[in-house]
Amino acid sequence: MATHRFRPTRYHNVIGTAEPCLRVADGDTVVADTIDASGLDAREVTVWERPNPMTGPFFVEGAEPGDTLAVHIERLTPSRATGWTYSPLALTVLDPAAIAERPAAERAVWDIDLAAGSVRLREPPPSLAGFAPKLQPMIGCFGVAPARGQALSTSTSAQNGGNMDYRLFAPGTIAWFPVSVSGALFYLGDGHACQGDGEIVGTGIETSFEMTVTLRVLKRTITWPRGQTADDIFTIGNARPLDQALQHATTEMLHWLAEDYGLDARAASHLMGQVVRYDVGNVFNPAFTVACRIAKRWLR
Amino acid sequence: MATHRFRPTRYHNVIGTAEPCLRVADGDTVVADTIDASGLDAREVTVWERPNPMTGPFFVEGAEPGDTLAVHIERLTPSRATGWTYSPLALTVLDPAAIAERPAAERAVWDIDLAAGSVRLREPPPSLAGFAPKLQPMIGCFGVAPARGQALSTSTSAQNGGNMDYRLFAPGTIAWFPVSVSGALFYLGDGHACQGDGEIVGTGIETSFEMTVTLRVLKRTITWPRGQTADDIFTIGNARPLDQALQHATTEMLHWLAEDYGLDARAASHLMGQVVRYDVGNVFNPAFTVACRIAKRWLR
Amino acid sequence: MATHRFRPTRYHNVIGTAEPCLRVADGDTVVADTIDASGLDAREVTVWERPNPMTGPFFVEGAEPGDTLAVHIERLTPSRATGWTYSPLALTVLDPAAIAERPAAERAVWDIDLAAGSVRLREPPPSLAGFAPKLQPMIGCFGVAPARGQALSTSTSAQNGGNMDYRLFAPGTIAWFPVSVSGALFYLGDGHACQGDGEIVGTGIETSFEMTVTLRVLKRTITWPRGQTADDIFTIGNARPLDQALQHATTEMLHWLAEDYGLDARAASHLMGQVVRYDVGNVFNPAFTVACRIAKRWLR
Amino acid sequence: MATHRFRPTRYHNVIGTAEPCLRVADGDTVVADTIDASGLDAREVTVWERPNPMTGPFFVEGAEPGDTLAVHIERLTPSRATGWTYSPLALTVLDPAAIAERPAAERAVWDIDLAAGSVRLREPPPSLAGFAPKLQPMIGCFGVAPARGQALSTSTSAQNGGNMDYRLFAPGTIAWFPVSVSGALFYLGDGHACQGDGEIVGTGIETSFEMTVTLRVLKRTITWPRGQTADDIFTIGNARPLDQALQHATTEMLHWLAEDYGLDARAASHLMGQVVRYDVGNVFNPAFTVACRIAKRWLR
Repeated sequence: MATHRFRPTRYHNVIGTAEPCLRVADGDTVVADTIDASGLDAREVTVWERPNPMTGPFFVEGAEPGDTLAVHIERLTPSRATGWTYSPLALTVLDPAAIAERPAAERAVWDIDLAAGSVRLREPPPSLAGFAPKLQPMIGCFGVAPARGQALSTSTSAQNGGNMDYRLFAPGTIAWFPVSVSGALFYLGDGHACQGDGEIVGTGIETSFEMTVTLRVLKRTITWPRGQTADDIFTIGNARPLDQALQHATTEMLHWLAEDYGLDARAASHLMGQVVRYDVGNVFNPAFTVACRIAKRWLR
Repeated sequence: MATHRFRPTRYHNVIGTAEPCLRVADGDTVVADTIDASGLDAREVTVWERPNPMTGPFFVEGAEPGDTLAVHIERLTPSRATGWTYSPLALTVLDPAAIAERPAAERAVWDIDLAAGSVRLREPPPSLAGFAPKLQPMIGCFGVAPARGQALSTSTSAQNGGNMDYRLFAPGTIAWFPVSVSGALFYLGDGHACQGDGEIVGTGIETSFEMTVTLRVLKRTITWPRGQTADDIFTIGNARPLDQALQHATTEMLHWLAEDYGLDARAASHLMGQVVRYDVGNVFNPAFTVACRIAKRWLR
Repeated sequence: MATHRFRPTRYHNVIGTAEPCLRVADGDTVVADTIDASGLDAREVTVWERPNPMTGPFFVEGAEPGDTLAVHIERLTPSRATGWTYSPLALTVLDPAAIAERPAAERAVWDIDLAAGSVRLREPPPSLAGFAPKLQPMIGCFGVAPARGQALSTSTSAQNGGNMDYRLFAPGTIAWFPVSVSGALFYLGDGHACQGDGEIVGTGIETSFEMTVTLRVLKRTITWPRGQTADDIFTIGNARPLDQALQHATTEMLHWLAEDYGLDARAASHLMGQVVRYDVGNVFNPAFTVACRIAKRWLR
Repeated sequence: MATHRFRPTRYHNVIGTAEPCLRVADGDTVVADTIDASGLDAREVTVWERPNPMTGPFFVEGAEPGDTLAVHIERLTPSRATGWTYSPLALTVLDPAAIAERPAAERAVWDIDLAAGSVRLREPPPSLAGFAPKLQPMIGCFGVAPARGQALSTSTSAQNGGNMDYRLFAPGTIAWFPVSVSGALFYLGDGHACQGDGEIVGTGIETSFEMTVTLRVLKRTITWPRGQTADDIFTIGNARPLDQALQHATTEMLHWLAEDYGLDARAASHLMGQVVRYDVGNVFNPAFTVACRIAKRWLR
């Protein structure tokens, strides 16, 4: 179980089947630098172009099509003291009638205070003086090579993962992705220091990171990304409209409850009907993301 | 501030402009019996037809078009010891490809244990033995008369409220509805002993209730339902697809943050971008429901 | 088979269960005045409020829930020489990113030349000098009382018809509606002198009409509106998003091909797969409209 | 203006930036063999895998990012005497409630009679005896390399074209695609002998073709595919839900009317409001297709 310290010199704007940047064994840990969504690195120098430049791909030995890649998110540490966001709200989350009165797009800088564990607008309007939400690092975009030679923009998402912008892809979470090519070809990046549901300003607090993940191969097959936190299991659907993303996530959960928890479709519906939670990931980019989540305490 | 004990003898399957069942003063409290979604009362006798028979409408003195009706949900007490649900999962939350293998629809009975504060399937499959989620009463369907003489089925929802099936419409919550007719004409019913997000089996645990609400008139105008709990404020959008419901809820929150919290569109986007939460209400019936929620601790 | 000349003195902004304006026998013909979408009558006097004031409802003797009302559109004659439209394009048909640059809403007047059979902007911009599309009268909004006491705004549409804004609801067409109440309660209005697909400026060329329709009761059951022209049969779905409207229309056509043409689901798919046509009705109002159309020459 | 006879030995299941199969000059004509959607060639031998294997890519000299590639569809000749379709109707076009009763998927063979100019089911059910729609060849999937290194499955579509399944991509039509890479990299295939709107059985009549197209480079920029037939001009939107595809197509038409016909947004809306037609392309695959079409006689 080796640990690899990886410092990329090139990045990727599609998740596809690029030449691996590193081969790792099943169970190895990778400590990798990632740059922010607009290509700024830890020194705030633009080293790559938009959107969401990815570090990778990592070839995981033993991973074959039909397998599952487990990504243990061990640690996400911002590698610089500032991040940025857009404002105002994205076009996709506004009533069309409200769009005409939307102010012009702007970029704002946030200070990231690792010691205090919080983030702050550098130049807050008076109405937001003192607004300092908690630092809550998360991975905006990660996943594995899609099937059949596709190369998908890092602005979107699909069955292989991608730009899901889901808050629970955070330290302590294990994410699972369906493997479509030998070696899985794992990409990661687009770290956020903080982000509400939906990535509704079109960004989280975008910054560069040092990300530590452990990669394991499972000899089982899944269809959509799955995950677990200390408290919950969840499944992910990526599609548009949101209704379809929700359908994918719900159906994947139904499969999971059958496979691992012995719940047939009727029993699963009795459980889910009372305890299911839906979370909204990205509602900014081409495909939208919905998570279907169940607390572990309801499962045996 | 009178308290009225109201025992209905007739119900309504549309939210419209029916003859008021009772006139109450601004600030009065109503303790009203409601029957379940299929018309079963506290004795488990069918006294009205589907869908979601409503108690009401209550005429609130002083409420005029353009005002807001505040509904303080004081207490929701199941009036019988059983509820029921459908299974399996609704067609609207499944991948179309998964629908063909769906088991036949069935109705299941749940025991409601007021003392223990929990609910249990009467005849659980072995895989759900011991499954006893907490009793979490909520109002599935409530609201006020819509504008311009409309009468909307209690199976759907709109700007005037209706069948939103949102978990946070629970004791302690204040819900606000935009008034379109003199007296507001407030209807309520469709109580659930428990329900996960989305009402994804097409029901919560449906039962009859004694519901206590206090009704107050506010001389201000809102466009979509709003609410607050001890911890949060939220806005509601009702539409299909979910994307549109989310747009309505988000835009209404933007208006609220401007009106009451002094946040212009840019400041609101900085706040919401980091702390907004989206909850999914009904995804079963014609219109779907999304809540846009913000913790009060972020607001001054 | 009587012919009734009906001159309304009041109108309706919802399609519901209002007191009938006239009782007619099965097979009778009605010649009725309608006013335009904003309430202007033949003298260009505002006699009622928006939206889409309806003439009716007509009680058709013998019509019972579960029956079908056939509406033969015999003649649609504008009753004044001008109509009006909005500009620019509606919010619902634009990319959100294009909305901010949309010019302000305006109302334009069109001259209706019955002799020439054409319509012309009264004050055309130079780029539209000479633009004179054919006069193509159609009914924008018509239908029967919905089920269970609902009263639906004339700005929307549902299984009972309503504001469908479909070009083929024109002279020579027979429209069929599912009857939900005794007497059917038929409403009509919102005539257009011309309109492209989708009603994408939010209006057709809105004007007052003398409309002649013959009403017949069929002892058969349909679920969604249907129609036939000289050349085609078609079914209508009303819902949002368009995908769902298309699903309703397609499924209703599948039922029709089985009932009247002996085609099982597989045979129907072989036929429809090669010859089906989809037309887009209203994409402006809450519910959108799709027609599924098949040329009669393919049917026996 | 050379004519190139191209006989492929390999195919592509993504539209990306593969090595060109041939370099052609601006204005050259290509006569190319294409195989059917499942990889069957003119001899009915499977030579490649699904979905929609493409012939190409053709490098067109002089084409640079920001240019437009014009594809003149000169001739589409089936290269064998049979095609095939699926049945029954696709899941995407059915009411969810109708899906459970759908018969099992099957493949049917059609005879293509070039002399008679018609197609016929080889083993029609009695209810379809004599059903022989006209041979109407069309291109199901074609387009150019997308931007930024993407490689998109030939089962879907985007701004670069792809699997649009639109009936008017037929002989005599000129299609225009936005160029994102040097040489444009043009792919084509997935020919249909006939197809109704929507590709609602998941296929047209799939067969192999000899396709003749002339490729020209235009030094102008477009955002979405455009086209013209003898009678009409049209724009294409590819997205889901259909509403969004319609928005893309409509907005692109607005741009076109401004660029080439001198119509500002208001004048364009006056014209489009009266004469626009919407056609439905693919409603089977991930992205759906809508065409916004205007008869040339309305344009100067």
